[in-house]
Amino acid sequence: MAESWVNSAERIGVDLHLELSGSGSRRGALATALREAVRSGRLAPGTRLPPYRALAADLGVARNTVADAYAELVAEGWLTARQGSGTRVAERAKPLGRPQRVPKEAPVRSRGPLHDLRQGVPDASAFPRAAWSAAYRRALTEAPSAAFGPGDPQGRIELRTALTEYLARSRGVRTEPGRIVICSGFAHALRLLYGDVGDRVLRGPLAVEAYGLGFHRGILERAGVRTVPLTVDQDGANIGELTSATGIRGVLLTPAHQFPTGGPLHPERRAAVVDWARMRGGVVVEDDYDGEFRYDRKPVGAVQGLDPERVVYVGSVSKSLSPALRLGWMVLPRHLVVDVVAAKGEREAWAGVLDQLALAEFLRSGAYDRHVRRMRQRYRRRRDLLVAALAERAPGLEVSGIAAGLHAVVRLPAGSERAVLKAAVWRGIEVEGLAEFLHPGAEPSLGDGLVVGFAAAAERGYGAAVDALCGVLPPGVEG
Amino acid sequence: MAESWVNSAERIGVDLHLELSGSGSRRGALATALREAVRSGRLAPGTRLPPYRALAADLGVARNTVADAYAELVAEGWLTARQGSGTRVAERAKPLGRPQRVPKEAPVRSRGPLHDLRQGVPDASAFPRAAWSAAYRRALTEAPSAAFGPGDPQGRIELRTALTEYLARSRGVRTEPGRIVICSGFAHALRLLYGDVGDRVLRGPLAVEAYGLGFHRGILERAGVRTVPLTVDQDGANIGELTSATGIRGVLLTPAHQFPTGGPLHPERRAAVVDWARMRGGVVVEDDYDGEFRYDRKPVGAVQGLDPERVVYVGSVSKSLSPALRLGWMVLPRHLVVDVVAAKGEREAWAGVLDQLALAEFLRSGAYDRHVRRMRQRYRRRRDLLVAALAERAPGLEVSGIAAGLHAVVRLPAGSERAVLKAAVWRGIEVEGLAEFLHPGAEPSLGDGLVVGFAAAAERGYGAAVDALCGVLPPGVEG
Repeated sequence: MAESWVNSAERIGVDLHLELSGSGSRRGALATALREAVRSGRLAPGTRLPPYRALAADLGVARNTVADAYAELVAEGWLTARQGSGTRVAERAKPLGRPQRVPKEAPVRSRGPLHDLRQGVPDASAFPRAAWSAAYRRALTEAPSAAFGPGDPQGRIELRTALTEYLARSRGVRTEPGRIVICSGFAHALRLLYGDVGDRVLRGPLAVEAYGLGFHRGILERAGVRTVPLTVDQDGANIGELTSATGIRGVLLTPAHQFPTGGPLHPERRAAVVDWARMRGGVVVEDDYDGEFRYDRKPVGAVQGLDPERVVYVGSVSKSLSPALRLGWMVLPRHLVVDVVAAKGEREAWAGVLDQLALAEFLRSGAYDRHVRRMRQRYRRRRDLLVAALAERAPGLEVSGIAAGLHAVVRLPAGSERAVLKAAVWRGIEVEGLAEFLHPGAEPSLGDGLVVGFAAAAERGYGAAVDALCGVLPPGVEG
Repeated sequence: MAESWVNSAERIGVDLHLELSGSGSRRGALATALREAVRSGRLAPGTRLPPYRALAADLGVARNTVADAYAELVAEGWLTARQGSGTRVAERAKPLGRPQRVPKEAPVRSRGPLHDLRQGVPDASAFPRAAWSAAYRRALTEAPSAAFGPGDPQGRIELRTALTEYLARSRGVRTEPGRIVICSGFAHALRLLYGDVGDRVLRGPLAVEAYGLGFHRGILERAGVRTVPLTVDQDGANIGELTSATGIRGVLLTPAHQFPTGGPLHPERRAAVVDWARMRGGVVVEDDYDGEFRYDRKPVGAVQGLDPERVVYVGSVSKSLSPALRLGWMVLPRHLVVDVVAAKGEREAWAGVLDQLALAEFLRSGAYDRHVRRMRQRYRRRRDLLVAALAERAPGLEVSGIAAGLHAVVRLPAGSERAVLKAAVWRGIEVEGLAEFLHPGAEPSLGDGLVVGFAAAAERGYGAAVDALCGVLPPGVEG
């Protein structure tokens, strides 16, 4: 029910007294106070506001101050002014009926499990908020006006230039800004290359590692691209199987750190896959998902450096900074650039330009290097803790894939994976089994195991997570 | 060719002297100076660096300072340290051969034409850099850690909550956070609804306005959705034609400001399209592309408010703030939420989470309202200038669609559109003709005309653009 303006004036006057004593203009303070009163429901829709003169007298301000504040709120839609009926609180959209039957919010993943040992997720609590904000601000200050206009689907030149240098230096990638296309992550890249628009850039069938992300296989399969698994052993994917398979047009690999088993692709196989691509006119799609995180002395550069015309190199900030940024990059052979840019333009889900500018600044200033170095130290410590804990409490279990990356593979006695995963769920541990990653058309050559992500947990929760994990592991076969 | 360390030491010493006298730690200054020397090419790949002791003596710093700086740059990949061969500048990836044959950069749209009268583009020079940076920083400071982890494809709850309030207040949209899905703009929304994945959310055929964006029709048609044109007159799309067409499952409309002709959908037609959707189980897709920019007194709320279960409402910041942000929103009927969220998760090109948080803060703080109000005043002045100039210099031409939005339609004598566009190109004016927007299956019921965007030009270039435009227009038929 609408209140009389007298009551309103009293309540507004009381409410505003506090606000008006603050800093800033009186008009601004009054507008803010009125807005808050409407927003919070203290001024109900339909309520008539006091005339300018009355409120001005109550508050001890000029009549025009009140008039201006009302006008501002009318323009914003908080109030309405109609000839003959004064100024009222706008009739807001009525609440929707039956709100209790609305589908529940998607499960809040952010809460996460009690013990977070998921693979593929960096420590969200370590995001460099201050450094990133500073880079963002500098980038916005320095950007040309045109940066705020319609963008170039290929991505900002500032970022492509910074990436050209960074990738050459840190990953041995040979490229130039004209061959880089910015995207939102690996899955976006895969969709740009093999997506389901009639004029897709590349065609299948595509060889993939027998152990890999089901999410990526799913994207390919829904796009009608058949995937053919290559056996994975301690030297990475068995490239020899490519030459015997017929009709394969491309191969998707994780050469720096096979996902999830964790070894680098053997140098002979690196050479062999490039030879295969040259002979058959094929394409290698290189998923360099965690190339920055290497803990031993041997750097493992990108396969792309061996032949930039045969390899599509894809990276992102999802592991190094945050998956929340949705920023990645494709380094393309020359002949694919135009088609990929066209596909990206048409599909239009471009990465935000301002974040692109901020990342360029973050790379240029060295802040990216500093952050990666800090996180490398942190993750290395966590890896060491995991390995030490397992050596003590489950001494018979082999741990592998630990020279790099954000996860380790813990081999389990044959037939025990499902039972261990079940026990983990009971203990509130989120962790995945090797079987999860096996291509449905491949043999489980690696047996049972867990893929243990040591990056996802917040720093102070990690020790407890490792402890809980050890509690559900079998002691293993004594060596 | 590698230089001797003596030369290097001399040059490094000289270069660094300046840097080391600055603020900050000596190690940091030395690392920065070395990095710059490598980056700029003054220190060539393979160059051996002086031993710690020698450089420390040259620079007058402690030996450990040099050792630490070298170690930092080794870790970053700028330098390599090998047993027995000292510290050298890393061999960088060799430049690619034949860079001159690389496809040219996509044309730099940012430069733009001499006179920018494109529709659909806001004034890029007016982006509120400082206010947006401040909101971004506040949002980052206040965000929970989980915000930097894997996101929710539906979008951040902070933004969906802020939009629920804003859209209710300013557009009369009736919704709640659980029914909003964040996307990167209207085209992304269209792809989520009608995209080419096998399990699309909605099915065609889809009725569209006979005059509209070819870009949108193209997305639909490539996805295999047939579009059926509805005649457009001064009251908007002719909704009556929907009932006579058979098999139509949905209709795509721009009710607040028909694009590009510029009128609002007549109230009777607003009611009629909702009745049609209820009777036939159809869906209305409401493209509210510039709903904030209304210059006359009558607010035109969203059709969505008439029936939230029958209308998919889509908006974005592309006109109000910047298309560079790639941020938009879909307000969905309850029964579509789960499917759209699933489609979005699968396709993974999510809008960046940090920009979502910044926009939530920008809305909450009132900065969005202030920016829109400022731009509304600016664009209204520009509209007035355009109308006045045309009245004086081309008095016979009718101007329409000017009560709202960022563009006007200037009607031309029959048969003159192509000639006028050609003359515009010669004068360096970027502007589009009405024919550009006509559905290929529809009659050109509106005749010849120009769609003149009055927002795209920078403030100081606008007067000249209008002047140039008047120079290429025929005087028109004298009233």
